[in-house]
Amino acid sequence: MKTEEKLNMTMLCDFYELTMGYGYWNSAYKDRITYFDVFFRDVPDKGGFAICAGLDQIIDYIQDMHFDEEDIAFLRSKKLFSEDFLEYLRNFRFTGDIYAIPEGTPIFPREPVLTVRAPAIEAQLMETFLLLAINHQSLIATKSNRIVRAADRRTVLEFGSRRAQGVDGAIVGARAAYIGGCKGTACTISDELYGVPAGGTMAHAWVQMFDDELEAFKTYCRIYPHNATLLVDTYNTLQSGVPNAIRAFNEVLRPMGITKCGIRLDSGDMAYLTRKARKMLDDAGWTECQISASNSLDEHIIQDLLRQGACIDMFGVGERLITARSEPVFGGVYKLAAVEDENGTIIPKIKISENVDKITNPHFKKTYRLYDRETGKAEADYIAVYDEVVDDTKPLELFDPRATWKRKTLTNFTARPLQVPIFRNGELVYQRPTLQEIQAYCAREVDTLWDEVKRFDNPHNYYVDLSQKLWDIKQELLRKKK
Amino acid sequence: MKTEEKLNMTMLCDFYELTMGYGYWNSAYKDRITYFDVFFRDVPDKGGFAICAGLDQIIDYIQDMHFDEEDIAFLRSKKLFSEDFLEYLRNFRFTGDIYAIPEGTPIFPREPVLTVRAPAIEAQLMETFLLLAINHQSLIATKSNRIVRAADRRTVLEFGSRRAQGVDGAIVGARAAYIGGCKGTACTISDELYGVPAGGTMAHAWVQMFDDELEAFKTYCRIYPHNATLLVDTYNTLQSGVPNAIRAFNEVLRPMGITKCGIRLDSGDMAYLTRKARKMLDDAGWTECQISASNSLDEHIIQDLLRQGACIDMFGVGERLITARSEPVFGGVYKLAAVEDENGTIIPKIKISENVDKITNPHFKKTYRLYDRETGKAEADYIAVYDEVVDDTKPLELFDPRATWKRKTLTNFTARPLQVPIFRNGELVYQRPTLQEIQAYCAREVDTLWDEVKRFDNPHNYYVDLSQKLWDIKQELLRKKK
Repeated sequence: MKTEEKLNMTMLCDFYELTMGYGYWNSAYKDRITYFDVFFRDVPDKGGFAICAGLDQIIDYIQDMHFDEEDIAFLRSKKLFSEDFLEYLRNFRFTGDIYAIPEGTPIFPREPVLTVRAPAIEAQLMETFLLLAINHQSLIATKSNRIVRAADRRTVLEFGSRRAQGVDGAIVGARAAYIGGCKGTACTISDELYGVPAGGTMAHAWVQMFDDELEAFKTYCRIYPHNATLLVDTYNTLQSGVPNAIRAFNEVLRPMGITKCGIRLDSGDMAYLTRKARKMLDDAGWTECQISASNSLDEHIIQDLLRQGACIDMFGVGERLITARSEPVFGGVYKLAAVEDENGTIIPKIKISENVDKITNPHFKKTYRLYDRETGKAEADYIAVYDEVVDDTKPLELFDPRATWKRKTLTNFTARPLQVPIFRNGELVYQRPTLQEIQAYCAREVDTLWDEVKRFDNPHNYYVDLSQKLWDIKQELLRKKK
Repeated sequence: MKTEEKLNMTMLCDFYELTMGYGYWNSAYKDRITYFDVFFRDVPDKGGFAICAGLDQIIDYIQDMHFDEEDIAFLRSKKLFSEDFLEYLRNFRFTGDIYAIPEGTPIFPREPVLTVRAPAIEAQLMETFLLLAINHQSLIATKSNRIVRAADRRTVLEFGSRRAQGVDGAIVGARAAYIGGCKGTACTISDELYGVPAGGTMAHAWVQMFDDELEAFKTYCRIYPHNATLLVDTYNTLQSGVPNAIRAFNEVLRPMGITKCGIRLDSGDMAYLTRKARKMLDDAGWTECQISASNSLDEHIIQDLLRQGACIDMFGVGERLITARSEPVFGGVYKLAAVEDENGTIIPKIKISENVDKITNPHFKKTYRLYDRETGKAEADYIAVYDEVVDDTKPLELFDPRATWKRKTLTNFTARPLQVPIFRNGELVYQRPTLQEIQAYCAREVDTLWDEVKRFDNPHNYYVDLSQKLWDIKQELLRKKK
């Protein structure tokens, strides 16, 4: 068995990727160029859109893709693969192309988030990791964005490491939460690795360690006069916690001329307690003292608290964000869309299903986002065949692919291709943005959506339409499969 | 920023562990010996018990606990900590004791799963990782055990990597699923790292790659005659998939004298389709052909399918297992239970709360499981003060700590201490069982529970009682806090 020290993620694949890979290698499909799309069918929490994330980890993964001697020995022990296939794996590297929608972009069901063009074996081997990275981080970025929107410009921090589903759930989860709009995390290593600002002050154990609460608070203020956020609910928030915090601020911070400080509440009725605490703090002259709240929060509870006049400056959100508790799965799939014949001609492929929504969009495709020139708002996404060009100086007729009589002509718009080239012939051709740039881009792009699409309940259905050419090809394939 | 290559998990801690650590270091509590308990309050899915897991990763973590130069530089950049504290961290290693309930044990609310005895800084620093490891793996082991029990001795395989919450969610999640009773996983690297048997054959892409389904099936049977499980639902399960599978078996396997093979269904009504498929296979003489099913399964759907006479030999369970979708959080907490004074006297500590269920059990404790000598069944758990010894040759009076008039006298029982020593003075003193041993132990221990406790809906409440001595100490502390 390997140690984590040397771990690369190439072996993080469903075993069938390897059995199929060896199958292709043993058949006429060894060098067959294939096109696979990653897409999803339903927005979590019945929301109007998702936020895509995970590409940066996919780039690292692809650049590091290789099988080392331990992997080869392990695969040999399965007694399924020939020595020449194992030799092929020993020299394996990714040689194909990847196109993807940049991290932080709002995405919609059925459009290709990421497209792989590669020999069948290569494209197959990467399926599991690509889906895992996109599914996990898009799930958390989407949830984070909902919570951040609910907080209505107040600060949201990610506090959930201890309830995360594994080490990576915490570390990369904090990264995805930051993309969605969280201002920081409690997770120290996410700061060290990804630059997600980490912060935190005290737990109940700090207060319990001392013989009394006031001494615990004063000691903390003395050590961290510029970073004193005191947890006030260990014994009784209003009778002891807030009064002791005020005494500690008065006795330690005031003589130092410090006016910035904070209290945190982690239990009880946040609407009632924070209003009372605010008044006590203000009456004592601590108007700059920030109030943080952190007890089982999510977007709905935050909206309710704010509606009820809670005085909260900062929300620390734990398990309901880091696990996306209300709907903890992002259902991205990886489907064959086309193959190339010996002459390089692209042959579209379709996966049919009795469930009409599960029928895939065939072919190598190109997706445009269409923005209104006047308002700057996104009006629709338009999926075309790879060689179609949308001319945004001319009117464009859109139709609903599931109700083709519903038509609309768009004028005065700009068309932006959503996917950008990431790898070409196995080489990275993408300039990776910083995490801060991704967060800022995400906020800007969410602003291009109409409020109706951003509603939590029954959002407006954003249009994701097919070009006439793509729609015709799809119908033709469906007729032939009958 | 560090690369994953060199990653150790010491920095996977909430930042407040570090600010509190520096606070203790700067106060009279620097060398204060503390006792912290990990316990949980509610069984996920309203079940009767949980399965604990995660200890093995905690052992690795503790043995590797250290701050390297990059960590020190990162912490220095925060401008919160003194150079002598950073020097202390540079030489940090764990020096305390750990007691824990072995992995695979059924556990119940409010009993200490793991107890740390260590100087305050050390105990505080490990909080986040201990909780993360126990919460994640106990969540998945518990869910896995529910699903395995629903499958009623049929094989259950873990298939969820692509929907896992991060790399570790997939890799270690498969390990936890195995502890709970899954026979294997699709995740190749979990086999390589932990010995969870990995398997798999084909996805829809394999079938789509070929011009027709029969050719796809025959090619696969030729390459893997001893491992031919064919996915039969790409086009139409009963009209094309199963007949083509039978033809492929007849043409390729039968001449080789092979009678073992399989089909897998991944969509449609499993009860109807598997009954029909079973009949078609049997009529064609393929009675040894196994039928696998793998579409959005969980314990409830599996029970329903079996009740409806589905002919399924093997269940592949994906996202609903690897994320514990129905309740994706295991709420383990880490609470101060005691401190030692300068003379080594243990002083119990309590965390009070307006919510009676949230009041902690104070003190350094020892939990016994009491088994009936006749039936071998577990009758109750009994939490005592660390220095109490349960004499199982004498009757023992139990009482419900929340309804002390409910009393019961146990006779003819054996008492087994649940926690065992893991570290003493920072040294590992525990002989780590193999994963296979943990799985077998888990199955045996679940067998000691009455069926009433194992029921999915409204299970019987298993007794977790306090000794009279512990109960008296708790009441005394509550009186003093008033």
